[in-house]
Amino acid sequence: MRDTIYSYHQLYAFALSVFLKMGCSNEDASLATSVLLSADLRGIDSHGIARLVGYVRLWEAGRINATPNIKIVHETPSTAVVDGDKGLGLVVAPKAMQIAIEKAKLVGTGWVSVKNSNHFGIAGYHAMMALSQDMIGMAMTNASALVAPTFSAEKMLGTNPIAVAVPAGNEAPFVADFATTTAANGKLEIAQRNNESIPTGWAQDAEGNASNDAAILKKGGALLPLGSEKELGSHKGYALGSIVDIFSGVLSGASFGPWAPPFPAYVPMPDNMPGEGLGHFLGAMRIDAFRPAQDFKSNMDIWLNRFRNAKPIKGHDQVYVAGDIERNMEGERMKNGIPLVEEVVNDLSQLANKFALKL
Amino acid sequence: MRDTIYSYHQLYAFALSVFLKMGCSNEDASLATSVLLSADLRGIDSHGIARLVGYVRLWEAGRINATPNIKIVHETPSTAVVDGDKGLGLVVAPKAMQIAIEKAKLVGTGWVSVKNSNHFGIAGYHAMMALSQDMIGMAMTNASALVAPTFSAEKMLGTNPIAVAVPAGNEAPFVADFATTTAANGKLEIAQRNNESIPTGWAQDAEGNASNDAAILKKGGALLPLGSEKELGSHKGYALGSIVDIFSGVLSGASFGPWAPPFPAYVPMPDNMPGEGLGHFLGAMRIDAFRPAQDFKSNMDIWLNRFRNAKPIKGHDQVYVAGDIERNMEGERMKNGIPLVEEVVNDLSQLANKFALKL
Repeated sequence: MRDTIYSYHQLYAFALSVFLKMGCSNEDASLATSVLLSADLRGIDSHGIARLVGYVRLWEAGRINATPNIKIVHETPSTAVVDGDKGLGLVVAPKAMQIAIEKAKLVGTGWVSVKNSNHFGIAGYHAMMALSQDMIGMAMTNASALVAPTFSAEKMLGTNPIAVAVPAGNEAPFVADFATTTAANGKLEIAQRNNESIPTGWAQDAEGNASNDAAILKKGGALLPLGSEKELGSHKGYALGSIVDIFSGVLSGASFGPWAPPFPAYVPMPDNMPGEGLGHFLGAMRIDAFRPAQDFKSNMDIWLNRFRNAKPIKGHDQVYVAGDIERNMEGERMKNGIPLVEEVVNDLSQLANKFALKL
Repeated sequence: MRDTIYSYHQLYAFALSVFLKMGCSNEDASLATSVLLSADLRGIDSHGIARLVGYVRLWEAGRINATPNIKIVHETPSTAVVDGDKGLGLVVAPKAMQIAIEKAKLVGTGWVSVKNSNHFGIAGYHAMMALSQDMIGMAMTNASALVAPTFSAEKMLGTNPIAVAVPAGNEAPFVADFATTTAANGKLEIAQRNNESIPTGWAQDAEGNASNDAAILKKGGALLPLGSEKELGSHKGYALGSIVDIFSGVLSGASFGPWAPPFPAYVPMPDNMPGEGLGHFLGAMRIDAFRPAQDFKSNMDIWLNRFRNAKPIKGHDQVYVAGDIERNMEGERMKNGIPLVEEVVNDLSQLANKFALKL
């Protein structure tokens, strides 16, 4: 089945209309749309418009509040905890990131932990908000438990991504944005769709044995932390996922670990949740709180140029810096459009019917 | 060859004497000794007293200044850059961490980037300084280039560790401390000593092919980032190592990437270094800058207890939390002593002769 190509502006207009139909304000709907579609542009298809129907179902189930009262509930000059009031993470997170940026302007850095939120799209969007301010941006979020710690048969952590964006001078910036697992769940979904097996190291079965079955999560299996197995450092990926969970969940008063709320609306909420909703952690560091921004940026240019020109191994044309591949994709898709697979097109058609919209 | 067992106090007295012979002040010598030996206690043998002779050689080569004037060269309420004045990283880093802690007391968080320093021992020591203050501690450092980025034939990054320490209530704290590579260089050294091969995924040869040769780094090979290969997420480990290098090196004005200064004194300093010495990055976040410390700590107890009681996979007794194994080792070695291999004992004997000390 061939993909259907849509322009960015077509999909933007459609997603915007859906968020407006949910009752979001104009400002929130356009912010949510920009965050959501930044994933499609950057080639992270699992976190883009493919999830729109999921957000709608959470809203229908009363788990997402389209008109949240997002507020600071605790703060110091460099920190805040934000209560997202069950809002779309796509709206709560960039607003929390803006608070981090404002604090960084005043005292050098700003750090905001968020509770009572929902899925926030790609972490990279929020981290990149810092770039135009000559700041380093950071973003992370916890998520429902799909990942087994080293030696664990139980799923205890989400894929808990970390994003860090660093400005540069003439070179394109450094933008890392990655799940703390060997592979993101989206990659297993693609393998399932194509009836393919998955590489050893991505997942384990219910007993903890290595599995090549792309559908193993439906059979009690789990994703593996970055590193895959103990001998190859999976305890490090497990530690990273834990740090994200603690900074996003425990520090804010959100739920955490195996109690993080699920994304699919048909999955019941966990019993005895120790906190409120999903959690995020956002940070901004003003470059000139450390050294003159021009000095830093000219050194970053040296760094980026040296890494981009490292000698590649045989069979590869070049060494990439974090964010390079996504930036290339963004240019390509803005120009040539965004391909959507049949299931996603069907989901969007159903949304169009539901809300009397044209796709 | 059997290891020789020394008590913590024997090794403490010896290392203290060596640092005093180098001309360190009493205060600095005892701080350096505590940091150094925390590695031996926690079972990270590659970063403990085995490195003492290396620090002495760097001092003899004029690359370590035993009486540094460690000072803040730039600051805001929540940030500082510290110039280590070529001091022992074992002294510079805990002093910089103390500055981060003091800033966190005043404005919620403190973030210190350090230049012109040297190897700082285990990252975990510095991060753990925050625990008794009801703060989360973070520490990272760059290091001389042993690691090839994904698809790179060149070594561009150090093993660049990250440590994060999180206080708890009744449960033992969370203490992550890990290299951003699949395996630390110390593990290759142990395999070489025992004439053993290394697992696939730890290292590549000069052409970028997977290698099982524990001595491959001497033959133009490189360590691999956490994840081992692209399909298993090595670009994520590469991104993590890059973040550590940027926060520690570029943000402070230290050297970075392939220009980071080498630890062995016989290796010449790189040409055209873009900054001064080695860099570190230290952070402290006051828990009650986010929420009441008691609330956080009781939630951390729930977190830690749940993870420690996760169902283990077959063949394993329990699931560990980051820092558990090192904490057990610390108790064991404080009680039963620290085993040293023959080469290390020989190195210490030579130091004893050089400085007319008794081991």
